[in-house]
Amino acid sequence: MPILTLTTDFGLKDGFVGVMKGVIWGICPEARIADLSHSVAPQNVLEGAFVLARACPFFPPGTVHLAVVDPGVGTERRPLAARLGDHFFVGPDNGLFTPVIEATERKGGALDFVHLTNPRYWLPDVSRTFHGRDLFAPVAAHLAGGVPLAELGPAITDPVRIPLPHPEKTASGWNAHVTGVDSFGNLTTDLPASALERRERVLFRLLGREVRGLVDSYGHEQPGALVALADSQGFVEIAAVNGSAAQLLGAQAGDVVEVLISG
Amino acid sequence: MPILTLTTDFGLKDGFVGVMKGVIWGICPEARIADLSHSVAPQNVLEGAFVLARACPFFPPGTVHLAVVDPGVGTERRPLAARLGDHFFVGPDNGLFTPVIEATERKGGALDFVHLTNPRYWLPDVSRTFHGRDLFAPVAAHLAGGVPLAELGPAITDPVRIPLPHPEKTASGWNAHVTGVDSFGNLTTDLPASALERRERVLFRLLGREVRGLVDSYGHEQPGALVALADSQGFVEIAAVNGSAAQLLGAQAGDVVEVLISG
Amino acid sequence: MPILTLTTDFGLKDGFVGVMKGVIWGICPEARIADLSHSVAPQNVLEGAFVLARACPFFPPGTVHLAVVDPGVGTERRPLAARLGDHFFVGPDNGLFTPVIEATERKGGALDFVHLTNPRYWLPDVSRTFHGRDLFAPVAAHLAGGVPLAELGPAITDPVRIPLPHPEKTASGWNAHVTGVDSFGNLTTDLPASALERRERVLFRLLGREVRGLVDSYGHEQPGALVALADSQGFVEIAAVNGSAAQLLGAQAGDVVEVLISG
Repeated sequence: MPILTLTTDFGLKDGFVGVMKGVIWGICPEARIADLSHSVAPQNVLEGAFVLARACPFFPPGTVHLAVVDPGVGTERRPLAARLGDHFFVGPDNGLFTPVIEATERKGGALDFVHLTNPRYWLPDVSRTFHGRDLFAPVAAHLAGGVPLAELGPAITDPVRIPLPHPEKTASGWNAHVTGVDSFGNLTTDLPASALERRERVLFRLLGREVRGLVDSYGHEQPGALVALADSQGFVEIAAVNGSAAQLLGAQAGDVVEVLISG
Repeated sequence: MPILTLTTDFGLKDGFVGVMKGVIWGICPEARIADLSHSVAPQNVLEGAFVLARACPFFPPGTVHLAVVDPGVGTERRPLAARLGDHFFVGPDNGLFTPVIEATERKGGALDFVHLTNPRYWLPDVSRTFHGRDLFAPVAAHLAGGVPLAELGPAITDPVRIPLPHPEKTASGWNAHVTGVDSFGNLTTDLPASALERRERVLFRLLGREVRGLVDSYGHEQPGALVALADSQGFVEIAAVNGSAAQLLGAQAGDVVEVLISG
Repeated sequence: MPILTLTTDFGLKDGFVGVMKGVIWGICPEARIADLSHSVAPQNVLEGAFVLARACPFFPPGTVHLAVVDPGVGTERRPLAARLGDHFFVGPDNGLFTPVIEATERKGGALDFVHLTNPRYWLPDVSRTFHGRDLFAPVAAHLAGGVPLAELGPAITDPVRIPLPHPEKTASGWNAHVTGVDSFGNLTTDLPASALERRERVLFRLLGREVRGLVDSYGHEQPGALVALADSQGFVEIAAVNGSAAQLLGAQAGDVVEVLISG
């Protein structure tokens, strides 16, 4: 039972996502398709990369992940497919897969990349502005249906990578970064919670406010309180209980979080 | 062909919903999954409860309904599964299933509840902040795949219930309540249309405006007119023809609707 | 493997879309269902018609397209099903299918229409306000499951058509029209790119701004630049590179685009 996921910045109002499903089912009728997000900020490759990297490990081996955040559509940027560990990935070669590539490297998984050049696996007519529909969706459907990666084009070894935020060690702790704002207004950061061994002795400073210690979960403080906790990916998250930390603080991706660890 | 539904306050931008589908298909690959809503207002248990209760009766027997509006995630609140009539329900024990429980009681259907304590049916690692992915989704998938309810944990008989709005009888009619605002701006109420036998003799007053009588459908008045009619659930609804009654009136859930019935 | 698509103005927050899937799977459990859009502006039949017409050609033969933008629900407007070419369509008879009908006529495809009058293929109780759930969804599911069109009601030959925008020839070129704004803020128009043979000699004027020539794709100009190009349907599109042309220009559907072709 082939499974595909879709991650795009297409929005849900124009039918752009639905039309890709039509193309996929025309090629691989038995495919199950899960939407990860279609509300990635337009052309924000890094945001799309994080959405995909956080969700994909929870899918079964063999899943094909189709991701299209593609400001360079119709230019020289290469169309790409890859096997990273036991999952497949299809999309533009613009760094969108960097976090998954790095995670696969850390785990010692297999990494194979191909440049999509074989038009046999595309729609007959390929527009200049919608490769999601005309090129990536058919390739993903063929992969899901069992076409070998090597059939799709020649192997390459230099996929584009984008710089990812990483926390910096300081004399008194870390400088971490807000990596995103979820729909509850919780702030994700790039600091693994495992970096903070003695959790009561930590102080977070961002945007003029301080948060002391790590709590176990939202419900352990009063509504409105600003708290820090380990998020569902194992990273430190700043949240306002039953509220929006992003609104309360005026925070956004890229903001620095000073992390001070005392004796 | 197992069917699951999903109702959450997760939004659609972060991949939280998609990741639950990955978990479900990893356990029950043949499952069909229908999204009911992921735009429940954050932590609004009552709103989520109504969305679920209105939609679930239209699904086939055996459907598993997964609902997660869960301000108490990671605290002592119990995780729950239930058989209510011929459907299954999985989610936090915080009142989210109250309208379905009451409807099942009115119909004399079976009601069985279990406290989810058997980790065999969860993901190996359960985070403190995302039980939707780590606990409820796997349990729902196992139920859909045929695991008996009793396998999931011990029976309980005291699920949390939340107070639901009900209309109050007055000397001249009813005091009803706005129970929600749909995406057209129509106002749903808690007054069954069947309570109004002689429909031409009724007057609705809310927020300084009056609406006289019940019409059969939107198209029977001019665009912009404020009308009352029986909604698709059999309750009285206040609507602005081809417009938004909520905007026109500044109405919101909880507002009182005076219902005056004349001789 | 039957495939259905859904196009509505129902929004995604109230469960109206999910409940239709419950009805469909109750009748045709093996159906695959693709959402095209549920964010059509309320009661905007023309916008829904374009979303459907642009997406449906990319679905396999036999697909059943269910579309409900239905300001006249519960009035005398007829419920309709049709075979247009090798696809099926179900929805209100209010012009929603006009672009598909015209496209089918241009290609010389088959056109068969029936007035949905046979309640055997509806839910037992049909509300006055939600034919999407009670009448159109069950009919679409039965069609997907193999019930012949002629079973559903008597043939008709006069489906409602709405006027569609078309570009007007002028002395110096064309007066085209903005037909929509996609979620990127790109402006679609009604002018086929094939009408502009010598693409360097064309000048577009709208809302006080000028755009010279047609580019191949977004990535061929600097971010922020206003460009014209052929969209993925073969029509002229006005876009702001990595930005929103709609915001930049204050443009909306219906605005005139002067197209000047020089010697």
